[in-house]
Amino acid sequence: MRFSTFYYLPSTVCCLLSTSLRGVIMSRRYEMRFSGSGGQGMILAGIIMAEAASIYGGKNAAQSQSYGPESRGGASKSEVIISDEEVDYPKATSIDAMLAMTQEACNKYCKDIKQGGILLVDSDEVKDVPSGNFKVCSFPITSIARDELGKTIVANIIALGMITELTKIVSHEAIEKAVLARVPAAFLDLNKKALQIGFEKAKAFKV
Amino acid sequence: MRFSTFYYLPSTVCCLLSTSLRGVIMSRRYEMRFSGSGGQGMILAGIIMAEAASIYGGKNAAQSQSYGPESRGGASKSEVIISDEEVDYPKATSIDAMLAMTQEACNKYCKDIKQGGILLVDSDEVKDVPSGNFKVCSFPITSIARDELGKTIVANIIALGMITELTKIVSHEAIEKAVLARVPAAFLDLNKKALQIGFEKAKAFKV
Repeated sequence: MRFSTFYYLPSTVCCLLSTSLRGVIMSRRYEMRFSGSGGQGMILAGIIMAEAASIYGGKNAAQSQSYGPESRGGASKSEVIISDEEVDYPKATSIDAMLAMTQEACNKYCKDIKQGGILLVDSDEVKDVPSGNFKVCSFPITSIARDELGKTIVANIIALGMITELTKIVSHEAIEKAVLARVPAAFLDLNKKALQIGFEKAKAFKV
Repeated sequence: MRFSTFYYLPSTVCCLLSTSLRGVIMSRRYEMRFSGSGGQGMILAGIIMAEAASIYGGKNAAQSQSYGPESRGGASKSEVIISDEEVDYPKATSIDAMLAMTQEACNKYCKDIKQGGILLVDSDEVKDVPSGNFKVCSFPITSIARDELGKTIVANIIALGMITELTKIVSHEAIEKAVLARVPAAFLDLNKKALQIGFEKAKAFKV
């Protein structure tokens, strides 16, 4: 029994730590997927998250997208892997957090969400929310962008703010620096507001 | 001897085909790396090349970048894999064509260029050109952008035009469509001209 204690107790402790301190202590791959349709800024969202985690957050990150000839006009996704160690394989296979901005993207890409993961959907577009062993946060992201900021183009930045708040995988400060480094100078204030709205709106969800 | 003819002739024919029709027939992974420093648009160049090959070129592509905490301010790279088949592993390991916009990026990333590959360097920045079993094309990309277009910001698009002409991995039409779909509407003409300059300047190189 002493041997079994030796073997099993550490994994139990690890499991408890990973549950209670998610986003604070990270000792493994953290996988994210941003999905929607072309023109919704999903690649930019992925790049910003990767740069927040690495350049402004001190971790390692890899960001990727795959395309087929069918990519034109269809569902698209970008992926980010964050780790304390170098990321060897940059594709997501067991997703901790996923964003779906359209029904098609949600249907196509949600299958890889891991047990206990998070799915954030834009409820303006995703009416048929998939069920599974993951938490779903459904919120009208695009209409909030239009109603509160007059620009649906920043829906991706609101979503980034929400997913930052939900996952706590990067700090508010890191994601803000990464957003401001990537958006056009004329729209810094708009994007900063979009991010703040995202942080605020996500606080209503308990994940 | 009949057996050896049977075994060796096909590979000789394949080799000749691959040399004479490079870029026209592709039956394997084609790996590209765009490297420089932050702010030189290397990620955008990678995304445009991947979209030219897939959305406008009918192939499969994967595009990725990796970051470490040291990424701030240092050499950066983005990678594109193009294939007739789905791309499982999106990182470059044996590079067919690489762009280096700075000396630091050139030194850091040229080691993975394969035998017979192509290295395009910006001669404004890369003075110490590495030697190896690959072809080097050295051209003052940034100063041509400044002198002929008045904007060094489009040096990455001139480089994209050059690497398209040198590799013929995508058509002029496909890369132009991909560029125009990704750059701001106010700068379509500037970017179109930058691409054309790239095509023209690269014709001077025999690779």
